[in-house]
Amino acid sequence: MNKIICVGLGPGDPELMSLRAYHQLQKATHIAYFRKAGTKGRARHIAEAYLNAVTEYPMEYPVTTEISFQSKDYQNPMGQFYDDWANRLVELSQDHEVTVLCEGDPFFYGSYMHLYERLKGRVHQEVIPAITAMTSAWHATAQPMTWGDDILSVIMGTLPKARLIEAMRSADALAIMKTGKNLPKIAEALEEAGRLDAAYLVQYASMEGEILTKLSEADWENCPYFATVIIHGNGRRP
Amino acid sequence: MNKIICVGLGPGDPELMSLRAYHQLQKATHIAYFRKAGTKGRARHIAEAYLNAVTEYPMEYPVTTEISFQSKDYQNPMGQFYDDWANRLVELSQDHEVTVLCEGDPFFYGSYMHLYERLKGRVHQEVIPAITAMTSAWHATAQPMTWGDDILSVIMGTLPKARLIEAMRSADALAIMKTGKNLPKIAEALEEAGRLDAAYLVQYASMEGEILTKLSEADWENCPYFATVIIHGNGRRP
Repeated sequence: MNKIICVGLGPGDPELMSLRAYHQLQKATHIAYFRKAGTKGRARHIAEAYLNAVTEYPMEYPVTTEISFQSKDYQNPMGQFYDDWANRLVELSQDHEVTVLCEGDPFFYGSYMHLYERLKGRVHQEVIPAITAMTSAWHATAQPMTWGDDILSVIMGTLPKARLIEAMRSADALAIMKTGKNLPKIAEALEEAGRLDAAYLVQYASMEGEILTKLSEADWENCPYFATVIIHGNGRRP
Repeated sequence: MNKIICVGLGPGDPELMSLRAYHQLQKATHIAYFRKAGTKGRARHIAEAYLNAVTEYPMEYPVTTEISFQSKDYQNPMGQFYDDWANRLVELSQDHEVTVLCEGDPFFYGSYMHLYERLKGRVHQEVIPAITAMTSAWHATAQPMTWGDDILSVIMGTLPKARLIEAMRSADALAIMKTGKNLPKIAEALEEAGRLDAAYLVQYASMEGEILTKLSEADWENCPYFATVIIHGNGRRP
């Protein structure tokens, strides 16, 4: 039985992937990757320069973030989609080692996790860690993120506003992901938590076109889904 | 004026550093790195295989974690130590590009941050991001860390017990760092927060001798400072 190897590719700049990820791309012969229908795919794009001749299996999401996560219209087709691709990858791995490309770190809010759970006990899996998108977002601000005893909380903009405010108040440093159309709610919650003025918005971190703005000065109505809000800790230092 | 380049080396396994970090090590001629007196230094050890002929500047901490962070005996010598090395690096950078080696991600509770702030406006600095130690800790558990809307909080074991309990109750996933002699307090706080049974202790993540145990079954009295406690999120999934 061959292995399925999930390669974490990091935040976007190909040079930020690990040596292990790079070596795996170099030897990959059969690759699979998630993408939105009609696009090349972010993971595929990051891996571009390092791949040799490969057979490709794009795994196209049947639905996207336009549908609410809570809705049955999202849950059912997505569950079926992961079931189908888990079966397909098990089949493919009979004949070949399969390399799955994933942006960010695969175990940190990653799509591969849904395959990982379904593949457990059926194939041998290896997962290569990577720099998270939030790490490149705090680097884009050119300021250290956490000091001393700072608590960092990572919060999804998809949460209800009351939960956002509570979480924003109880941590020192904040990384807020899944922003996009949730940005107005996030910004209002930060304002109520008294933290809007300290917030930065990072779009396309580590990629061409990286944009850093104070959140208070950003266009809240037009924000890509993968932008990150960053508030730095301010803890103890000698 | 030359640059000072801080290279994040990641959690310990040299293969987990980024391609950019690797390329910088290959061309480095003058390197500086923190270490505890009497040791080779963790960062220096990670970089070992990739360095060519270099002039070395070990920056030896004048005090270590045996002294309380709050104490003047810790703050004064550490402040002086960072002041002195910032001056020294500015001098060195007149003649050479200086590469500073740092384990983990330099902007995430990293020692280099204290130099970074002191060097601002005096030299041109570049900081190369890296995989954080906590990322390799959750990979060591072979389980995805965060799902859907999970809130992840990163908590330092140096905090007072009441603050630990509060933070442990208000997040879904937890990464608890700066463990060491704080581990009994951390474990008791997790017990009071009702979360001890879900906790893993990861020692030497990604390094030779990596150890994964349930925290409830670990030896709380003998824990290295850089061990990490991990509790996984359990959020929404299709």
